[in-house]
Amino acid sequence: MFEHMTTIRVRYSETDQMGTFYNSRVLEWFEVGRTELFRAAGISYASTEDKNVLLPLVEASLRFEGRARYDDELTITSKCRMDGRASLRFDVNIVHASLQKPVASGGTRHAITDRAGKPIRPPHWLVQAISAESE
Amino acid sequence: MFEHMTTIRVRYSETDQMGTFYNSRVLEWFEVGRTELFRAAGISYASTEDKNVLLPLVEASLRFEGRARYDDELTITSKCRMDGRASLRFDVNIVHASLQKPVASGGTRHAITDRAGKPIRPPHWLVQAISAESE
Amino acid sequence: MFEHMTTIRVRYSETDQMGTFYNSRVLEWFEVGRTELFRAAGISYASTEDKNVLLPLVEASLRFEGRARYDDELTITSKCRMDGRASLRFDVNIVHASLQKPVASGGTRHAITDRAGKPIRPPHWLVQAISAESE
Amino acid sequence: MFEHMTTIRVRYSETDQMGTFYNSRVLEWFEVGRTELFRAAGISYASTEDKNVLLPLVEASLRFEGRARYDDELTITSKCRMDGRASLRFDVNIVHASLQKPVASGGTRHAITDRAGKPIRPPHWLVQAISAESE
Repeated sequence: MFEHMTTIRVRYSETDQMGTFYNSRVLEWFEVGRTELFRAAGISYASTEDKNVLLPLVEASLRFEGRARYDDELTITSKCRMDGRASLRFDVNIVHASLQKPVASGGTRHAITDRAGKPIRPPHWLVQAISAESE
Repeated sequence: MFEHMTTIRVRYSETDQMGTFYNSRVLEWFEVGRTELFRAAGISYASTEDKNVLLPLVEASLRFEGRARYDDELTITSKCRMDGRASLRFDVNIVHASLQKPVASGGTRHAITDRAGKPIRPPHWLVQAISAESE
Repeated sequence: MFEHMTTIRVRYSETDQMGTFYNSRVLEWFEVGRTELFRAAGISYASTEDKNVLLPLVEASLRFEGRARYDDELTITSKCRMDGRASLRFDVNIVHASLQKPVASGGTRHAITDRAGKPIRPPHWLVQAISAESE
Repeated sequence: MFEHMTTIRVRYSETDQMGTFYNSRVLEWFEVGRTELFRAAGISYASTEDKNVLLPLVEASLRFEGRARYDDELTITSKCRMDGRASLRFDVNIVHASLQKPVASGGTRHAITDRAGKPIRPPHWLVQAISAESE
């Protein structure tokens, strides 16, 4: 398992008329968490596609636990591990940085496929990177 | 339980570089389904907020089942029912209209609160509307 | 010049904490207008890319003229014409359908290129379609 | 005039099927630029709304000058000045950080109003902050 923490600020474009973030943004923040976790693990998510390894989302679950307003700083903690032999799982926790209150949590499960969408064996460099001890 | 079907087309802005829709759009399409289901049930989602009844999202789950490209027509089938005494549940199924292949499915659970975020008893007009036989 | 009118409803995901639509949505609504104008002119915007004709956006200008709330119905009127010999221009007007008040207006200019990004002569079927009398 | 530079990475959710960013994202990146410029000038954009000062967008213009892919780093340079006595203007330049190639540029003009939408005189703290020499 590899764990990583990153920080974002709520954009005005991510708010809605309830004055908090719109619900679908959480999936976009999960993606920011995955990107930065991969970078910390020494993998570029962008270059996995160049290597003909795609990680299409199969399932996602989300819990909405608290509000966050425009410009609030959020801490995204992501954990990545193999889920069975052919899929990857991220568990994510988003917390309001200054209030230390939960904002949202959940997870995503990803297939491992080639560009044609055919499932492939997880490449060695991927398995190794996410099995490394997090810094 | 109240059931309703509505149709959308995938916008260019909803695609991503994989050539299919970006995952968070599904939550936005679920919202389109809720809005149109409520309209069919004789409720305006917009006016529930004016009546001091808010339905904040508490949980969501999504399964990504197939691709959909720009301008493809999608059929969104939404079902709404009370979930316990204090929350509302929508189950949603999104299908590619011409291919009749599954695209995404899942559900959302909503609390029933006032504008201050305090849970309230589900108003009578809401319970009645979603208990009606769908047309 | 070809002119076309289409209708959308403001999605909850398109609102922001000011209670009106977030500004970038207007560019997404312009795109809905272009797509539907093309359909009315007998062209599928999606299939132009299959024909190796891309219409990348070069310039856009927007004026924000009025508010629109969640679920409000908006009328998008789009006009399309050649702009010089190598670019396409859309002029768009968005009006609140029931109040008949202006919401936003503006335009976009598009290059005409192949998939490699090289400018190409506007294909005959494109010029002809947008020169037709609108229905 | 106050000038400020900030950096973002293109999110996967911001790409489209052409493999570059979708056009409306530029307006969202302009907003990130405004937010960070204000922070550097000692103003919190979020708290201006609490002080009953709103800066609704009146006009925007955009030029699309180059591609940017998922995870590319972009440099946003924003300049802010009074535009006449009752409006604020931002000029923005977005450049691909590693390639040093132009990506997009343009500007936005904002009215200065109270929460009811009535134009107000620009508050002293606002005029002073953006007239300061940039660091």
